[in-house]
Amino acid sequence: MLNFDINEYRDRIKKTKKRMETEGIDVLFISLPANMNYLTGYDGWSFYVHQGVIVSLDKEDPIWIGRDMDANGARITTFLKDEDIRSYADDYVQSKTKHPMQFVADIIKEKGWSNKTIAVEMDQYYFTHRCYLELEKALPKAKFKDGNLLVNMVRMIKSEKEIEFMKRAGKIAVKVMRAAIDSVNVGVRECDAAADISYAQIKGTEEYGGDYPAVVPLMMTGEGTSTVHLTWSDRKFENNEPILLELSGVYKHYHAPIARTIYLGTPPKIMRETADVIIDGLAKTLEFIKSGVTCEEVEAKWREAISHSNIVKKSRMAYPMGLNYPPDWGEQTMSMRPGDKTVLKPNMTFHVLPAIWTKEVGFEVDDSIRITESGYESLLGDFPMGLFIK
Amino acid sequence: MLNFDINEYRDRIKKTKKRMETEGIDVLFISLPANMNYLTGYDGWSFYVHQGVIVSLDKEDPIWIGRDMDANGARITTFLKDEDIRSYADDYVQSKTKHPMQFVADIIKEKGWSNKTIAVEMDQYYFTHRCYLELEKALPKAKFKDGNLLVNMVRMIKSEKEIEFMKRAGKIAVKVMRAAIDSVNVGVRECDAAADISYAQIKGTEEYGGDYPAVVPLMMTGEGTSTVHLTWSDRKFENNEPILLELSGVYKHYHAPIARTIYLGTPPKIMRETADVIIDGLAKTLEFIKSGVTCEEVEAKWREAISHSNIVKKSRMAYPMGLNYPPDWGEQTMSMRPGDKTVLKPNMTFHVLPAIWTKEVGFEVDDSIRITESGYESLLGDFPMGLFIK
Repeated sequence: MLNFDINEYRDRIKKTKKRMETEGIDVLFISLPANMNYLTGYDGWSFYVHQGVIVSLDKEDPIWIGRDMDANGARITTFLKDEDIRSYADDYVQSKTKHPMQFVADIIKEKGWSNKTIAVEMDQYYFTHRCYLELEKALPKAKFKDGNLLVNMVRMIKSEKEIEFMKRAGKIAVKVMRAAIDSVNVGVRECDAAADISYAQIKGTEEYGGDYPAVVPLMMTGEGTSTVHLTWSDRKFENNEPILLELSGVYKHYHAPIARTIYLGTPPKIMRETADVIIDGLAKTLEFIKSGVTCEEVEAKWREAISHSNIVKKSRMAYPMGLNYPPDWGEQTMSMRPGDKTVLKPNMTFHVLPAIWTKEVGFEVDDSIRITESGYESLLGDFPMGLFIK
Repeated sequence: MLNFDINEYRDRIKKTKKRMETEGIDVLFISLPANMNYLTGYDGWSFYVHQGVIVSLDKEDPIWIGRDMDANGARITTFLKDEDIRSYADDYVQSKTKHPMQFVADIIKEKGWSNKTIAVEMDQYYFTHRCYLELEKALPKAKFKDGNLLVNMVRMIKSEKEIEFMKRAGKIAVKVMRAAIDSVNVGVRECDAAADISYAQIKGTEEYGGDYPAVVPLMMTGEGTSTVHLTWSDRKFENNEPILLELSGVYKHYHAPIARTIYLGTPPKIMRETADVIIDGLAKTLEFIKSGVTCEEVEAKWREAISHSNIVKKSRMAYPMGLNYPPDWGEQTMSMRPGDKTVLKPNMTFHVLPAIWTKEVGFEVDDSIRITESGYESLLGDFPMGLFIK
């Protein structure tokens, strides 16, 4: 049930170990679900309990560590040998006396790594402060370092197979947005449109199925368009209101986000003007994008392109995305904003979202792209950029 | 857009402050989305960036802290005054130089709380080790304590309105499981059944819409029934295979989980026998449940009820649930297993899941219940407990 050839996993592990060497790290404990999947194939909604993968420079394969009931899940979804799948008894779960990191520390001791330099993901969901305290207590001779984003950095440039997965996600994304635009109408409940969207996301295409998104469908209506992370209720869409949708197509946990704005009725002048400025600015920014330019240069181009208007976008205008699990499809490694000097390289993938959310007007449009030598390629094909008026 | 009367929120805050006093805590910083929602009404998929709510003994209302673009979301969904909605600029997000906890610390200083006893949720998703390090560095005179589960403990006993929400979730859950049983057939793709399930979850009923579950539909087939947290692929269901489903109905983030087992074809003897033992054991356990007994007594009853068989369940057989966000609908405060002496009280709510996942056989059945003085009430009505053979 591996999604990639085993050599692709081995290559990822090799790159991870190289980074570990450069940073003086002997042993890396990762708990971000996307990173666990990336290095071992592990796939399961088990991240609500503590788990992780250990990569050590002196051991070829990683070790998966999780809860007893998930060990067979690791046997099914990873390439790991049975001896490298280690699981803890259920009395470690949400216990007042035991903690899963004590079990992790026991394995580190058993392998002779307790006086090594050990890195953990210090600013990732699922690696809590308590996790750190337990490891530190159980491994007093270890030197701890921050391994935050180490594997995320390896994930920045996608393989051809990963790009193929993301193109599939893009094809699903287009179907999802079409379903959404079809569904949203005056008198329809928000939840009914959200149900249609989710249905399209999971069903996928006739050729391949879809997966669950790392972010549920975001839907902002009425005064809600002044903000960005709301979901649906059971109120009905009304005439003369904007609906912002931030959705995604997903294939085997790889994402292609898609965001558009619908207006039910006749959009006011400010909405049409804002749409024109942002769509034009996005087009000019995309034209500028290619391998070799930096994140901040792209953002400067965007700011220049809309400088003739009075629109101000205070948040980053793009971020990398790809393989992910809830709560985010973003990869956290770069942001298109002032100060980010990361140089774009082929097969980096970005969600370009030059959206605004103010009290006066909210508008969303985006593109999900991969960087090429000479420019970019959209994962969304030629799906129209406009404001959808119904 | 508040889901509860403002007095219900005030009562929750009062109970939280009382616990803080008992534990010698002056200031509590919470970051678990369910706890943020419980105390303020805040509702948004913004938990992929750092955010939180501060409760201080010397201030009536909590303070919401999050990202600029989410502040209007807080204005829309909470009862908080504008001055208590504090948001940070976007350059704090996933930055190499700044961290949102520096912003949190600045507010703590501004309010004169920097030498107080401050509690944080040390073992919760979304409060990372780095969060702690930043707070500790910026507030050297503060005394830090663990506030893990403090608000979760307040959440243990549900109000009448919360129970009403969970009953609505239960009605949705039954519709969801019916949709699943209808959809799962030989030759149908797993993703198509998952799409039908998700559609039913979000659509809800004609009277009220559904919400997104804190755990996506879990679906184990074939050898996958030896484990518990797998999701769907695009393979087709085959004849003579079991399908385990762990789903939920959700109303305004309140859950009523439902788990059942389907068999396509003629179930083998071990499957029928296992189903009989577990269903009978569950019935005997439920009969025993009432206010005043302890978690471990319930589990002992269950173990006794199945002791005539050779079934061994190594994991806890029930846990509390209710209001929640991904990645879990469980509340982490109690577990029905040996050693947990928590006494059951009316309006505690549990997911009772005496399921097993072994290489020989996997079987799931459950009930979602509230405790009453004299027994329990199922949130799932009279939905049948059996093995569904198709």
